[in-house]
Amino acid sequence: MATATLDTAALTNIARDYKVADITLADFGRKEIDIAEQEMPGLMSIRRKYAAGKPLAGVRVTGSLHMTIQTAVLIETMVDLGADVRWASCNIFSTQDHAAAAIAAAGVPVFAWKGETLEEFWWCTNEALSFPNPNGPGLLGPQLVIDDGGDVTLLIHKGAEMEKGDKWVDSPSGSTEESVIKTLLKKVHADYPTRWQDVAKEWRGVSEETTTGVHRLYKMLEKGTLLVPAINVNDSVTKSKFDNLYGCRESLVDGIKRATDVMIAGKVAVVCGYGDVGKGSAASLRGLGARVIVTEIDPINALQAAMEGYEVTTIEETLGRGDIYVTCTGNVDIITTDHMRLMKDQAIVCNIGHFDNEIQMEPLNALKDVTKLNIKPQVDKYTFATGNSIFVLAEGRLVNLGCATGHPSFVMSNSFSNQTLAQLDLWANKDTYKIGVYVLPKKLDEEVARLHLEKIGVKLTTLSPRQADYLSVPVEGPYKGENYRY
Amino acid sequence: MATATLDTAALTNIARDYKVADITLADFGRKEIDIAEQEMPGLMSIRRKYAAGKPLAGVRVTGSLHMTIQTAVLIETMVDLGADVRWASCNIFSTQDHAAAAIAAAGVPVFAWKGETLEEFWWCTNEALSFPNPNGPGLLGPQLVIDDGGDVTLLIHKGAEMEKGDKWVDSPSGSTEESVIKTLLKKVHADYPTRWQDVAKEWRGVSEETTTGVHRLYKMLEKGTLLVPAINVNDSVTKSKFDNLYGCRESLVDGIKRATDVMIAGKVAVVCGYGDVGKGSAASLRGLGARVIVTEIDPINALQAAMEGYEVTTIEETLGRGDIYVTCTGNVDIITTDHMRLMKDQAIVCNIGHFDNEIQMEPLNALKDVTKLNIKPQVDKYTFATGNSIFVLAEGRLVNLGCATGHPSFVMSNSFSNQTLAQLDLWANKDTYKIGVYVLPKKLDEEVARLHLEKIGVKLTTLSPRQADYLSVPVEGPYKGENYRY
Amino acid sequence: MATATLDTAALTNIARDYKVADITLADFGRKEIDIAEQEMPGLMSIRRKYAAGKPLAGVRVTGSLHMTIQTAVLIETMVDLGADVRWASCNIFSTQDHAAAAIAAAGVPVFAWKGETLEEFWWCTNEALSFPNPNGPGLLGPQLVIDDGGDVTLLIHKGAEMEKGDKWVDSPSGSTEESVIKTLLKKVHADYPTRWQDVAKEWRGVSEETTTGVHRLYKMLEKGTLLVPAINVNDSVTKSKFDNLYGCRESLVDGIKRATDVMIAGKVAVVCGYGDVGKGSAASLRGLGARVIVTEIDPINALQAAMEGYEVTTIEETLGRGDIYVTCTGNVDIITTDHMRLMKDQAIVCNIGHFDNEIQMEPLNALKDVTKLNIKPQVDKYTFATGNSIFVLAEGRLVNLGCATGHPSFVMSNSFSNQTLAQLDLWANKDTYKIGVYVLPKKLDEEVARLHLEKIGVKLTTLSPRQADYLSVPVEGPYKGENYRY
Amino acid sequence: MATATLDTAALTNIARDYKVADITLADFGRKEIDIAEQEMPGLMSIRRKYAAGKPLAGVRVTGSLHMTIQTAVLIETMVDLGADVRWASCNIFSTQDHAAAAIAAAGVPVFAWKGETLEEFWWCTNEALSFPNPNGPGLLGPQLVIDDGGDVTLLIHKGAEMEKGDKWVDSPSGSTEESVIKTLLKKVHADYPTRWQDVAKEWRGVSEETTTGVHRLYKMLEKGTLLVPAINVNDSVTKSKFDNLYGCRESLVDGIKRATDVMIAGKVAVVCGYGDVGKGSAASLRGLGARVIVTEIDPINALQAAMEGYEVTTIEETLGRGDIYVTCTGNVDIITTDHMRLMKDQAIVCNIGHFDNEIQMEPLNALKDVTKLNIKPQVDKYTFATGNSIFVLAEGRLVNLGCATGHPSFVMSNSFSNQTLAQLDLWANKDTYKIGVYVLPKKLDEEVARLHLEKIGVKLTTLSPRQADYLSVPVEGPYKGENYRY
Repeated sequence: MATATLDTAALTNIARDYKVADITLADFGRKEIDIAEQEMPGLMSIRRKYAAGKPLAGVRVTGSLHMTIQTAVLIETMVDLGADVRWASCNIFSTQDHAAAAIAAAGVPVFAWKGETLEEFWWCTNEALSFPNPNGPGLLGPQLVIDDGGDVTLLIHKGAEMEKGDKWVDSPSGSTEESVIKTLLKKVHADYPTRWQDVAKEWRGVSEETTTGVHRLYKMLEKGTLLVPAINVNDSVTKSKFDNLYGCRESLVDGIKRATDVMIAGKVAVVCGYGDVGKGSAASLRGLGARVIVTEIDPINALQAAMEGYEVTTIEETLGRGDIYVTCTGNVDIITTDHMRLMKDQAIVCNIGHFDNEIQMEPLNALKDVTKLNIKPQVDKYTFATGNSIFVLAEGRLVNLGCATGHPSFVMSNSFSNQTLAQLDLWANKDTYKIGVYVLPKKLDEEVARLHLEKIGVKLTTLSPRQADYLSVPVEGPYKGENYRY
Repeated sequence: MATATLDTAALTNIARDYKVADITLADFGRKEIDIAEQEMPGLMSIRRKYAAGKPLAGVRVTGSLHMTIQTAVLIETMVDLGADVRWASCNIFSTQDHAAAAIAAAGVPVFAWKGETLEEFWWCTNEALSFPNPNGPGLLGPQLVIDDGGDVTLLIHKGAEMEKGDKWVDSPSGSTEESVIKTLLKKVHADYPTRWQDVAKEWRGVSEETTTGVHRLYKMLEKGTLLVPAINVNDSVTKSKFDNLYGCRESLVDGIKRATDVMIAGKVAVVCGYGDVGKGSAASLRGLGARVIVTEIDPINALQAAMEGYEVTTIEETLGRGDIYVTCTGNVDIITTDHMRLMKDQAIVCNIGHFDNEIQMEPLNALKDVTKLNIKPQVDKYTFATGNSIFVLAEGRLVNLGCATGHPSFVMSNSFSNQTLAQLDLWANKDTYKIGVYVLPKKLDEEVARLHLEKIGVKLTTLSPRQADYLSVPVEGPYKGENYRY
Repeated sequence: MATATLDTAALTNIARDYKVADITLADFGRKEIDIAEQEMPGLMSIRRKYAAGKPLAGVRVTGSLHMTIQTAVLIETMVDLGADVRWASCNIFSTQDHAAAAIAAAGVPVFAWKGETLEEFWWCTNEALSFPNPNGPGLLGPQLVIDDGGDVTLLIHKGAEMEKGDKWVDSPSGSTEESVIKTLLKKVHADYPTRWQDVAKEWRGVSEETTTGVHRLYKMLEKGTLLVPAINVNDSVTKSKFDNLYGCRESLVDGIKRATDVMIAGKVAVVCGYGDVGKGSAASLRGLGARVIVTEIDPINALQAAMEGYEVTTIEETLGRGDIYVTCTGNVDIITTDHMRLMKDQAIVCNIGHFDNEIQMEPLNALKDVTKLNIKPQVDKYTFATGNSIFVLAEGRLVNLGCATGHPSFVMSNSFSNQTLAQLDLWANKDTYKIGVYVLPKKLDEEVARLHLEKIGVKLTTLSPRQADYLSVPVEGPYKGENYRY
Repeated sequence: MATATLDTAALTNIARDYKVADITLADFGRKEIDIAEQEMPGLMSIRRKYAAGKPLAGVRVTGSLHMTIQTAVLIETMVDLGADVRWASCNIFSTQDHAAAAIAAAGVPVFAWKGETLEEFWWCTNEALSFPNPNGPGLLGPQLVIDDGGDVTLLIHKGAEMEKGDKWVDSPSGSTEESVIKTLLKKVHADYPTRWQDVAKEWRGVSEETTTGVHRLYKMLEKGTLLVPAINVNDSVTKSKFDNLYGCRESLVDGIKRATDVMIAGKVAVVCGYGDVGKGSAASLRGLGARVIVTEIDPINALQAAMEGYEVTTIEETLGRGDIYVTCTGNVDIITTDHMRLMKDQAIVCNIGHFDNEIQMEPLNALKDVTKLNIKPQVDKYTFATGNSIFVLAEGRLVNLGCATGHPSFVMSNSFSNQTLAQLDLWANKDTYKIGVYVLPKKLDEEVARLHLEKIGVKLTTLSPRQADYLSVPVEGPYKGENYRY
């Protein structure tokens, strides 16, 4: 087995084995995967239940999702269920190199390393989509996709649209990344003009786990351009109310600490956005003694923040007193270069939302009167003409993945159990699923939770038949109506 | 104006003026209403916006909802909008007598006092339904109903079904209260055999604000017996995620303290049910230093409790170490007499769910080997043969309303703004509404939140057009999809 | 037995039986005393240990301490130890009338009711000092004093000084209360010119439990005017770190809620002073979702507040945004009339420090352009010329005692166990104690804690001999050095 | 300048330049020192105030204290004040290699690297004590010592006692470390028989900042063996109530996370000891959703833990349900090998107290039926015959320093400001100080706090003269009595 080189000339005819930072890290990765398995009871239980039947035998699955130790357990679960898996990370900084190495050593083609360039990132994504064709020349594409942020879904859709004449690839680009994608698509197109339509033909579904990616799916559905049935895993309760909330509560400060070792107590921290990620982030900072200020556009979320005792105001009002800024909105231009110019000296700026455009990073880097000093990987100090400096973490990308190791295993086991059940469902019902965006049935959502209770010693109460009757629910659930918000 | 006596002979032909505990409390009640108005910006803003147009001019509205100071502000809002209102409380202990007096003194027929018997309670409910007929003899019924727990809705439905031949009134009763209702219905029937069908004819809708009442509505809808369109106010985010959660966080301990003055710190508190009410209750107790144990049937809620650091186990496992028990499940038989027998000496038992059957109160009172000592109103000490005693608060009814004054004004302003908007909507669209159970549109939900921000100094961020476009939402909202859980 | 009338003519020759608000409340009081005994394991254990030996047999003890249910358990503990007790409250609003009634009914001369005037208050204090003389005419004084705030100590000292020629009684008074005290002293003096010197002769010691009272004692010690040995119970760890902190955490919001029913969540609360009482108060408010701002003079306490995430600023900076103000400094003029004028409309102002001069109440009441409206007992609304109103609770006196029932039994059991042990110690060693201010030995402090562990299920670890040796402490304690701060 | 080799042959005649892991890390270290200076306002302010006067000009100072970035700022402060400094770390794992490199590059002789053996550790300590003699052959010793845990103090005392005939060096050793110390002392003795007495002659004082080190000092004082005046910096309020409490609150979970990435939420965490370190540790774990159980020997601390809602029980009762164990007692044998055998599979065991003997590490490593697997530096997995495994972090040494970077700069600025003021005081008053153990005067303690307020935006209130008079304190402090516990 050989590590792939970044051979950008051959994008449409070679199925490479893997490309990782350092294959010798495989043993260390394996030790940590073994530990993580103990913390991921949901995935391990799904393995025990389904592995024998190989329900995904031979199904080609492309994953685009942070290549961490936890994801390694997901990948090996998919392999255990029979799938033929190829993988890329969905963020240039989020790969744990020892995890990637262990997965590569186990024989799964993985294309991911910490600190990719944007060109490398999209090259990796393309590799993860390039399955060998056992029956002849050329490449096959995936039958199922596991997506996080929707990059794979975007690439196939934009590719197929281009092949049918859409001119997006020739339009001006709003960001560097956009132009990288266009270049890749044009290169593929030059070699293999129906590549993406061929992929789309065999593609049977996608499961997506982020707010951002789901948002893109609903938008495509609305426009009538969505090509496959999609399962919105993000809105499983056991995903959005766990991973987003409790995952960030644990990993935000972890990322900030590993990057800066700064004292949180006594600091003024500004959390932009009070969705589940914002709720977790604010709790994380307050837990250590920060004074948290929240910014919000939605009056309901704003009122929730106020009820928890947070000051809620605009970002402009915080400039000069905020010590730590965290964006978690799923929106753009939350922290602008003008904001950064006016911040308190030594302020720390980071993002825990999916995309780095929450902070105006490209404009910041383009400013003429700012000097940038790299302190260590993922920590940059920008000094303005005023003499004030700010620290930007992970170049504005997900701070918990760029500066620490992301969410802990236990909470990811919930998210990934949903992903796995979604993949099983998409394949099992591939012939009846219509194009659309679906959430998993509540019964499965409850099942995911149930699989995680024993590990942490929870004893559930069982309804008596009289009680179940009084509530008009089955003894074994599901228990709640569709309007219930947990 | 004269106080009504409890004349149970004339249930179908006299529209009484009011019946309250002590009309001389009206001045004190008015002072507290004046204060509450300052804390209820949502209701006051609705008054300012709509009062001039009198959109409910002459509409007969029956309210069955805890007759507190906050409810007085709701009632006067309805009157300002033009409605012809009659009111009863929805709980025998929840009336604040000075609030009732002030409302009676203001000319609104109200039938409510703290400490009603069950017979009195249902008599009051019937009075609140009995509007004078300006055009002749006999009584009219309401055109709209504001319900809390569904008692008025139940009475009309059961009455109309009886009149059409249903035999429920003659069936054996599962509780004392059930037999009281049947007696009332039979008495009305004897006097006026088509009373409830006549009421039903002019009835155009109901808005309901509790989990319990909403549950009943969906059940009737499912069975095809629901008579009118209903708006489920409980599932407005600004209701269930505020009143249920933050209201209970403030009022549970308030109730326990006023009843017992017990120290919360260091105690083991058992919260049965971890829905929004349970979440608020647990936070309330932990905030003062109790060690909280949660019981749950739903694995998702159970996992949420565990993620917050609560022990989750069965009630049986807590017996002997729990010092305080709180039920908030919406279910029956949560604390049985067998449980109570095995509790630690001096344990405190209370309920913050809508109905008192969460605790087996009737069976407890029927036990032969238990002595009951009344300590003060709403506090009873039961001593078992073992010598152990427990304290039951508010006879198992809502402890925050029975032992304190319920939720504070600010959070009730949210709930009641939803009620008022629901009433306006039901009436404005009475000709197009079909029978069904509806939630208020998200836009109105956001509006309710928005009306409460200024009072507490919240400054909202406004989306730029570019941001709104990126998110595909209007600048002015609504901002979230239907799956969003807050 | 007959209730005493407020016979101010006979202050020096009649030992009255009692004066309470309503002796018929005795049964209710007794029921609550029975409950409180279960929550006061320290006092009950001291009774069990010492009652048989009657170590205080016949000792005359005057108590001046909030006449609550908890104090009733203290009083009956003293009686069980053999003491001859007389009692007054140390605050005009803090008496629980049913507690006073029960104690009177049990035969202990108690002079206390909720809502005394200042004249009545000092009359009561004098009565509590007036023991019948079994051997002849005239009155005796106490041999031991239990003080809270130092009023009894003050009266005896000022009286004795006057008798020896001091002119304080004729000097201009800084407050209404000061002039009331002077009038009383002069009246006693007219009747019985050596009354206080006679009292002082037999007085053997005082135990004092407040920061304020202790401060007075050290001041007298410094000036050389202190007449007796004093035990500073306040600085027992099991007092100041429990009662002050956890007691206020539970009772501050309790008082505010019973007075105003206001929603705490979302409010800006200003806590003046971040000592133990301030720490408890801030925690109490934050626990329900208030945003707490702290004011401090001491940089160490200020830094502590900041480390807990509280904003720390001056009171002037909070005017216009603070919704709730609480003083807990032990100092004067914390909230001035100028501050109150500039407060946000509807602000709530209260004090949880020992004396009411933390808020400028006398100056406020003297303002010409302010109108005062009594809402209900202990709740007054002051409206300024601007139209803004504020609510002042308990007339600026201890809000937890004036508007609720003070600290809960369990924490008071700690404080009162210290008081009782101090009394036992003062009497047992009366012949060797020199005039001075003492704290209880750490061993007794630990003992008080130990007596409270079982009730709340705490299991203590025991040192092995090797571990005790390593730490150089006895296996059974005491465990910490004098510098240790807990 | 050349890196020293570990030349154990020449311990008494060569003053080496430095020995660090990698001098090329100096630039990175300097960048982080620059950042830390911004977070250490106390130290920087002391530099500004005193540097010009060089109050420690030429004074030889030996430091034995974790060689971190924060310590680098302390060292450079001492250098700025004029001192001639040599340094070693006080823990084999606590050095940050880039910090050591930057200090070495700045010309300060430092002997420290992460992951020393015990032989290397004591060699480094000896080097830090070995000052060149400008006036002739041989070495000089320090005039002042900055100690952390008391290792330098121990070495000098044991050395001087040996030279005077004490036989401790020939006695059997209770631990590996003890025998390493003895070997070193004997080797020095062979070369230079009066080395330690010569050192002692010029030694004028030590400041010590840990509970453990202070405990040793009091013990020596009691036995009459203490050689110099010592300042107990640990019991400055701005040390023990800040560094121990808030430092651990931030760094405990940081260490556990960097080592294991484990999810804290939902776990049962057992904190052994509820002193300031335990309080911070428990808060840290609870903040992320762990259920914390506390073990304690002292009834007062135990009651405090219970009042905060922690379960308090013995460690034996937690075996089988505890997921994370943290020791913070300052005592030995807290977690024994028998405990570890009975722990839940996958339990994590770590220590945040000064010495590694809180956990029975040597006995664990000596067990025959246990296998040890190193996962990564400072993370070892021990598997018992039962099949259960536990993870031990940092080989039982300080987990926050071994697995993360210790306390954050801001809190260390408080501790180190105390250290610096103590050093200044010891030197300024060297001729009047008597042998003893002293705490810094409260005025200096308040000054340290004051220096840290501006950085975090705290605005202090100033007493009016009337208020200061009422409290009998100076307007500018100090404000509290000796019994006050903060």
